[in-house]
Amino acid sequence: MPAGFLKHPFMSQRAVAECDDDAMVNAMLAFELALAEVQETSGAVPAGVSQQMHEQLENAAFNSEEIAAGIASGGNVAIPFVKQSRSLLSDDIKRYWHQGATSQDVVDSALMLLLKPRLAALDELLVRCRSAALTLMNAHADTPMVGRTLMQQALPVTFGVKVALWAIGLEQARRRLSAVELPVQFGGAVGVHSGWDNLGLEWMDALAERLGLAVPVLPWHTDRYPIHAIGTGLDAVAGAAEKIALDVALLTQTEVGEVAEPSAPGMGESSSMPHKRNPVRSALIRGAARQVHGHTSVLINAAAQPLERGLGEWHAEWAPLMESALLVEGALEQVAVLLEGLEVYPDNMWRNLSATGGGIMAEPVARILAPTLGTDRAKAVSAEAAETSRREARTYSDVLAHHPDVKGAVDPEALRNACDPALYLGSSAAQVMRARKWLEIQ
Amino acid sequence: MPAGFLKHPFMSQRAVAECDDDAMVNAMLAFELALAEVQETSGAVPAGVSQQMHEQLENAAFNSEEIAAGIASGGNVAIPFVKQSRSLLSDDIKRYWHQGATSQDVVDSALMLLLKPRLAALDELLVRCRSAALTLMNAHADTPMVGRTLMQQALPVTFGVKVALWAIGLEQARRRLSAVELPVQFGGAVGVHSGWDNLGLEWMDALAERLGLAVPVLPWHTDRYPIHAIGTGLDAVAGAAEKIALDVALLTQTEVGEVAEPSAPGMGESSSMPHKRNPVRSALIRGAARQVHGHTSVLINAAAQPLERGLGEWHAEWAPLMESALLVEGALEQVAVLLEGLEVYPDNMWRNLSATGGGIMAEPVARILAPTLGTDRAKAVSAEAAETSRREARTYSDVLAHHPDVKGAVDPEALRNACDPALYLGSSAAQVMRARKWLEIQ
Amino acid sequence: MPAGFLKHPFMSQRAVAECDDDAMVNAMLAFELALAEVQETSGAVPAGVSQQMHEQLENAAFNSEEIAAGIASGGNVAIPFVKQSRSLLSDDIKRYWHQGATSQDVVDSALMLLLKPRLAALDELLVRCRSAALTLMNAHADTPMVGRTLMQQALPVTFGVKVALWAIGLEQARRRLSAVELPVQFGGAVGVHSGWDNLGLEWMDALAERLGLAVPVLPWHTDRYPIHAIGTGLDAVAGAAEKIALDVALLTQTEVGEVAEPSAPGMGESSSMPHKRNPVRSALIRGAARQVHGHTSVLINAAAQPLERGLGEWHAEWAPLMESALLVEGALEQVAVLLEGLEVYPDNMWRNLSATGGGIMAEPVARILAPTLGTDRAKAVSAEAAETSRREARTYSDVLAHHPDVKGAVDPEALRNACDPALYLGSSAAQVMRARKWLEIQ
Amino acid sequence: MPAGFLKHPFMSQRAVAECDDDAMVNAMLAFELALAEVQETSGAVPAGVSQQMHEQLENAAFNSEEIAAGIASGGNVAIPFVKQSRSLLSDDIKRYWHQGATSQDVVDSALMLLLKPRLAALDELLVRCRSAALTLMNAHADTPMVGRTLMQQALPVTFGVKVALWAIGLEQARRRLSAVELPVQFGGAVGVHSGWDNLGLEWMDALAERLGLAVPVLPWHTDRYPIHAIGTGLDAVAGAAEKIALDVALLTQTEVGEVAEPSAPGMGESSSMPHKRNPVRSALIRGAARQVHGHTSVLINAAAQPLERGLGEWHAEWAPLMESALLVEGALEQVAVLLEGLEVYPDNMWRNLSATGGGIMAEPVARILAPTLGTDRAKAVSAEAAETSRREARTYSDVLAHHPDVKGAVDPEALRNACDPALYLGSSAAQVMRARKWLEIQ
Repeated sequence: MPAGFLKHPFMSQRAVAECDDDAMVNAMLAFELALAEVQETSGAVPAGVSQQMHEQLENAAFNSEEIAAGIASGGNVAIPFVKQSRSLLSDDIKRYWHQGATSQDVVDSALMLLLKPRLAALDELLVRCRSAALTLMNAHADTPMVGRTLMQQALPVTFGVKVALWAIGLEQARRRLSAVELPVQFGGAVGVHSGWDNLGLEWMDALAERLGLAVPVLPWHTDRYPIHAIGTGLDAVAGAAEKIALDVALLTQTEVGEVAEPSAPGMGESSSMPHKRNPVRSALIRGAARQVHGHTSVLINAAAQPLERGLGEWHAEWAPLMESALLVEGALEQVAVLLEGLEVYPDNMWRNLSATGGGIMAEPVARILAPTLGTDRAKAVSAEAAETSRREARTYSDVLAHHPDVKGAVDPEALRNACDPALYLGSSAAQVMRARKWLEIQ
Repeated sequence: MPAGFLKHPFMSQRAVAECDDDAMVNAMLAFELALAEVQETSGAVPAGVSQQMHEQLENAAFNSEEIAAGIASGGNVAIPFVKQSRSLLSDDIKRYWHQGATSQDVVDSALMLLLKPRLAALDELLVRCRSAALTLMNAHADTPMVGRTLMQQALPVTFGVKVALWAIGLEQARRRLSAVELPVQFGGAVGVHSGWDNLGLEWMDALAERLGLAVPVLPWHTDRYPIHAIGTGLDAVAGAAEKIALDVALLTQTEVGEVAEPSAPGMGESSSMPHKRNPVRSALIRGAARQVHGHTSVLINAAAQPLERGLGEWHAEWAPLMESALLVEGALEQVAVLLEGLEVYPDNMWRNLSATGGGIMAEPVARILAPTLGTDRAKAVSAEAAETSRREARTYSDVLAHHPDVKGAVDPEALRNACDPALYLGSSAAQVMRARKWLEIQ
Repeated sequence: MPAGFLKHPFMSQRAVAECDDDAMVNAMLAFELALAEVQETSGAVPAGVSQQMHEQLENAAFNSEEIAAGIASGGNVAIPFVKQSRSLLSDDIKRYWHQGATSQDVVDSALMLLLKPRLAALDELLVRCRSAALTLMNAHADTPMVGRTLMQQALPVTFGVKVALWAIGLEQARRRLSAVELPVQFGGAVGVHSGWDNLGLEWMDALAERLGLAVPVLPWHTDRYPIHAIGTGLDAVAGAAEKIALDVALLTQTEVGEVAEPSAPGMGESSSMPHKRNPVRSALIRGAARQVHGHTSVLINAAAQPLERGLGEWHAEWAPLMESALLVEGALEQVAVLLEGLEVYPDNMWRNLSATGGGIMAEPVARILAPTLGTDRAKAVSAEAAETSRREARTYSDVLAHHPDVKGAVDPEALRNACDPALYLGSSAAQVMRARKWLEIQ
Repeated sequence: MPAGFLKHPFMSQRAVAECDDDAMVNAMLAFELALAEVQETSGAVPAGVSQQMHEQLENAAFNSEEIAAGIASGGNVAIPFVKQSRSLLSDDIKRYWHQGATSQDVVDSALMLLLKPRLAALDELLVRCRSAALTLMNAHADTPMVGRTLMQQALPVTFGVKVALWAIGLEQARRRLSAVELPVQFGGAVGVHSGWDNLGLEWMDALAERLGLAVPVLPWHTDRYPIHAIGTGLDAVAGAAEKIALDVALLTQTEVGEVAEPSAPGMGESSSMPHKRNPVRSALIRGAARQVHGHTSVLINAAAQPLERGLGEWHAEWAPLMESALLVEGALEQVAVLLEGLEVYPDNMWRNLSATGGGIMAEPVARILAPTLGTDRAKAVSAEAAETSRREARTYSDVLAHHPDVKGAVDPEALRNACDPALYLGSSAAQVMRARKWLEIQ
C-alpha cells in the first residue's frame, strides 16, 4: 500500500515506528502474559507457568507474515497470533495460554496499549505547544494587527489575542483528551467470563492495573463508548491544530505577509519558483486533520454494534482509530515547530492596518463625530473620508481633519486618536492576561 | 421544506415546538435585554433604559417573515432581528440597543439558550432511561439467553447483563453530556470588545451569569471547541441509543422473538399484513442516530474557522447543531418507552438456547471430558454429540450420556450440569451487581 | 424547529415552498391515483373507479396535523396518508385504494416526484451559470492576474482561465446530474408484487410512464443505488459551487481585492462597520455545501439496507436527500447571481502581480539569464534582484538591467519582456478557447 | 504503522502489493519519461534525450527512504522524487527532466496510473460476481423463502429475487465505475503551462494518449471533479457489496440458517467454540465498506480547493483515494467467493416460512375469505387462525379448514392454495427473468 509516500508524511514518524506490526505483536503478547500472571496469582494457572511463558516467548521470533496470512480466515489478528504464540510454548503449558480470553479481548487491549504512549506523546506535544504559544502571545500582547471577519478587514486586534485563542483551542482539547480513558478489555467469548464466574471481573481489574490501563465498568465488546471518546477527543485536537494552520496559511498569503512559517533549509521551496516559500507545515496539518475527520466519521457511525460482538463494525474501527492518533501526533509536531519558530512581521501588520486608507477606523471615528454631526451624517463623513484617503493616498486623520464638516468642530487630538488602530484594541491586552492565567492553571 | 413529514417523526415533538423561529427570536431578545441590563449596571447605558427596552419589547409582535427575508442580505438572523427590534424602540434609546455586540454574539448565545433546556430534557430522559434499565436488569439478572457474536450463537449470557450494558452505554454518554458547557458568546465585531476595552470581559462574565450560561475563557468566535464538545457529546448519546435499537431489532426478529417493542394500539401495524408488528421505535431511533452522525460530520469538519469569523463554516453549524439536539431528544423519548415497556420472552430465550441442539455448550462439555478423553478427542466428541442432538432432536445431555466414549467414564451429574446453559453464566450476575453500583453512584 | 432562520437562508426559497408538507401529500396522492388508473387499465380496478377517486380527492382538504400525528405509530408518512385518503373515499371504492402497494412504494415515488422539478430547476440554474461564466471568461480571456498555489503567489494566469475552470467544474457536475435517474418505486409488501404476479411489473412500468419517472430494473426497496446516485450527484454540484465561493472569498479579501460580490442595497453590509462589504453569498454557498456533504455522508452510510426493507436506514434517507436538493438549489441561485454580477478589478490584479517586486517573474528571467550566467547563477541573480526591487520599490526590470552581471550581457528587450507578466500567460488563451468549445457542445 | 494487521485484511493483497511505494515511484517515472518523449516529439527536448533518460533510469535503484525523508520539506512525494531521479541523470540532460511540469502533475498522474489497473481489476471482479450471481439466481429462481421488512417476516419471495437484487446493485455500480475517467494531469506551476504557451495543451493530450489515461478538458489542479467521480463511484460499489454482506450476515444467523458462507478449512472458526462458524467474509466486507465511506467523506469535503493549488485539501485526498480502491477490491474478492460458494439451505427457508404458523399467509387468506366473510371479519379470522396454528402447532390450512366460519363456506382447495407460500410468489419468477436480461446486455 502506498502508505509510505501518501500517508506517512502526515504522521509522526516516531509514532509510525512505534506502532508497526511488531509493536502490535508485542502489545498482544503483553496482554496474554499479564493474563497468565493474573491467573497464576489467583490459582487458575499453576505456579511458575507465567514465568515459563515469559521466558519462552520474550525472545521468540514471531513470524509476521504467517500471522498476516492467518487473519483472513479468522477475521482478526488475535486468532493467528494466539495460534502462533501457543505453538511456541512447551506442550505442558499450552493450555494455559489465552485462557478465558477471546480475540476481541486481545485486540482491543492491545490497541489501548499502543495508544497509551501516543496519548502521552500528544500531551507532551500539547504542553510544548502551550509553552510556545505563551511565549508568542506575551511577545505580541501589544502588537496590533487587523482583525478579519468573513475574511474582510474589520477592526484592530492584537496578534497576542490571536495566539491566545490558538492556545486556548489546543488546551481545551488537551484537557479533554487527558481525561479520556483507555480501558482494558477482558470478557471472554461473550463478555461474561464463561466458565470462570466471578473470577472474571477480578482478573479484568487486575489486568488493568498490571497493564496500566483503566478499569472499565464491564467488558465493553459492544459498548463502544471508549472508542467514541478517544476518537472524538483526538478529533478535537485535530480541529484545534487545523485552526492554527488555517490562520497561518491566510496570514502568510503573499499579499498579507503578516507571518511566515519558520524557515529551514529546503523547507517549502518550490522546485521551479525561487521566490516562493510554501506553507508546507500548514498544508500537512490541514491534510492530516481532514483525514482524522474522515476516520472519526467511521468511528461514530460504528458506535452501535450488534449483540455481543460487532460484525464489521468492530473491524472497521481498528485502522481509523490508530491512524487518527498517528495523524494527530504528526499534526502536533508541525504545530509545535510552527509556534516555536513562527516568523511574525509587525510592520506588515501595521501596513495592512492602513490598507483601507483608515476605513477600518470609520466606526470609532463615527462615534467621535456623532455628538457633533448626528449619527447618520457621522457615518457618512467617516466612510467618505476613508474612500478619499484610499484614493488620494493621504492619511485618514488628515483627510478627516480637513473635511469641511469636521474642521474646527471636533477636537483634533481626539480625532487623531480615533484614527489610530493602536489605540483601539479593546480588551486585547486583558484577554491575553486572562488567557495566560487560564493556560497556566494546569 | 418537507420538515414536518420527513424529519419531525425522528425528533421530540416538544423540543420541535420549543425551538421554532419564535423561540429563536425570544432567545435573541433575551440576549440583547440582558446585555442592556449588564451595561446599565456598569454605567454604559443610562439608568432605566434596560427597563424601557424590556417594556417596549416584551409584548412586541415580531414579524418573522420580515426577519426571514432579511437574512439573505446579511447572512444571519441576528442582523434583521437587531434592525427590527431596534425599530420597535423609542428613538432616544435606540442607540443603546445591541451596543458593543456583533451578530455572532447574538446568534451563538441564542443557540446556547435554546440548547440549555434541551440538555436538561436530555438529562431527564437519560435518568428516566437509567431507572427503566435498572428495573429491567434487576428483573432479568438471572434470565439466561444466548450470547451472539458476529450474530452467531456463542455461549449463554443473561438478559440482565445485556440491559446493564445498554444502561452503561447511556450513562457514560449522560455523564459526558452533563459536563459539556454552554458558554455565552460576547466579543463584539472582532472579538476584542472594540471601543469598550476592559469592560468587555466584565460584561461577558456578567452576561453569562444573567443568562445562566457558562463563562468562556475568551470570546470563541472562531474557537469552536464548545460546538465540537456539544456535537460529539450529543453524538455519543445517539450512539448509545442506536445500540439499544439495534439489539432490540435483532432480538425482535420473527425467528428470534426474545423481546418485542411495547405494544400500543396501532403501533407498528402493517397496513397489509395483520401478523406483523414492526419495530417502529427502533427504526425511528436508528434513523435519528444516523442523521445525527451526518450532522456531527459537518460540525467536526467546520471546527477550524478562519481568522476572526467563519466564512460559511460558522453558518454551516447552526442547523446541524440544533437538529442533533432535537433528534437525540426524539431518539431518547423512544428509548425511554422501549425500556419501560419492553416485552421480554424468557421462554423464547430458553428455546433459542437449545437451537443448536446443545452445540453452544460444546465448549464446557469438552472441558469436562478433557481430563478423561484428552483435549482433542473431547472437542470432537462434544461437537459430534451436538450434531446428533440437533439431527435427532434429542437433548444434548442425553446423547452425550449414551456416547460410547463417555458412558460410565464421566460423572453423569457433572455432565448434565455442563449441558445446562443456566449453570454456565460466568460473571453475569456479578456484572449486573457491579453495573448497578456504578449506575447508582450519580 | 428553527428551520426558518437557521436552515432556510441556505436553501432556494422557491424550492422550499414547493417541497412543503402539502407538496408531499400531493405527490403521494399523484402516486396513488396513477396506480389506480394503471390498475383500471389492466382490469384490476373496475372502470370509472380511478376517475371517482380523482374527483373525490382532488379538492379534498387533507389534515396535515393528523397525518403528522399518525407517522409515529407506523414510522412513515404513507401509512397515515393512505388511511386518511381512504377515509375520504366512498365505501364502495375504498378497497381499490393503495391496492398492491406498500408504504415504501408511496414514499419513495413521492420523493422522486418532488425531486423531478428540483433537478430541472438545478439544470436550469446550471445552464444559467454556464452562460454567465462564458460571458465572464470571454471578457477576461486576456486579463492577467497572479496564480496562487498553496495560497502563495506563483506565476501569472488570466482571470479567464480561472472562470473557465469554474465553469468546467459546474458543467461536469451538471452532465452527471442530468444522467441521474429518478425511478418509480412499486413492489408491494416485499417487493415481488405479492398476489398480483406478473401484473406487478407491468404496473410498475406503466406507473413510471404515467408519472414521468424512470423505469427501474426491479423494485429497489433495498437496492439504494438510485439514492446514492442522486445524493452523490447533488454533492458534486455542491463541490463545484463551493470551489467558486472559496475563490471569490479569497480574491475578495481586503488585501487582495481582485473581485467583489455583486453589490446590492444592504447586501453584505456590516451592522457596525461601514467600510465592510461581506462576501455573504460566498458564505451562504459554503455553508450550504458543507451541510450537503454531511447529508451525503448519511446517504452513503445507509446504502446497505437489510433484506426486503430498511430498519432505520431507509428512514434516515428522507430528510438528507430532500434537503441536499434544496441546499444545492439555494447555493446555485447564489452562484448564478455571483457569476452574472461579479465585480472584477483588473487594476488590482495588475497591482498584485507586482507585489513581489517582480519576484514571481524570477523563473522566466532565470531562463533568459541561464545561457549567459549558468543556471545556478541565473537563479541567484533573478531572486536577488526581486528582493532588491521589493525593498527599494524599483521595477524588477530596472533593477535587473543595472545588475553588474546582467548589464550589457543580456538583450534588454528580451529581459523586459521576461519581466512582463502579461507576456507570460502560457496556454491561458488557448485554455479559454478550449473550455468554450467544450462548454458549448451541449 | 499497524497497516499490516489492522488494515490489510480488508484489502486485496494483490492490490496492496501492486500499490506500494515502488509502484508509486514507477508511476511517477512513467509520467516523467512520457513527458520527455512527448516533448522530444515536439522538439522541446533534443532528439535522443528521452531514450537516454529511459536507459539511465530504467534500472536505477531508487532510494525510497531518501524520498520519504524528502517529503516533509516539500509536502509531496514528487519533489524528492524529481530531485533524486534528476541526480541520476547525466548532467547534460538534467535540465530536460520534469520540464514544464509541477509536482501536482506528477502526483495526480501517478495516482491515476496506479488506479488504472485497479479499476480494471474491479471490473473483472464485478463481472465475476455477476456471473456467480446469475448462476445462483437461476438455480434459486423458484426457491421460496420469507421476505422480511424491518427485519420481521412479511410475505414470501424467492431466493432468486434476492440474488437478482444483489446482482443489480453490483452491476449498476459497475456500469457507473466503468464510465469514470482517469485523466492525466499536466498544467505546470499554475496550470497554464507557463513558458510553453500552446505547446502545453498539445503535450497534455499527447501524454494522456501515451499513458493510456483520459484527456481532461483542462488541467484540473483545483477542479477535483475527477476525484469526486472516482471516490463516489468506488463508494457505490462498496455500498452494493455491503448490502450483500448484510443480508448474508442476517440469513446466516443461527436461528435463521438459510445460507452460510462457503466453508473452507479454518475459515470462520472460533478459537474456543467448536460449533461456531463466523461469517468472517461478511465482517470483512462490512468493515471495508465502512472505511470506504469515511474516505469518501474526506474526498467530498475536499472537493473545493483554493485558487490554483490546494493547501491541505489536495494532500488529504491521496491516501483516502488509493485506500478506497484497495478496500473495495478487497471487499469484492470476498463477495466473489461468497457468491460462488454460498451454501443455500432451501429446507431452512421452508421451515422459516412456517415459523409464524402460517401467519405470513394471513393476507392472501383474508383476501380469499373476504367475499364470504366481509373484509374485517376475514382479517380477524385469518389472524386468529394463525395464532391458533402457532400455539397448537397445527398447520394453518388445517386450522382454517375447521374454523366454524370457514368450514363449508370456502372452497377447501382455494384455501389450501392460499396457505401455500410456494404459490404466493408474485412476480418473483418474472423479476429474475427481467434481471437476467438486464444483467446480460452488457
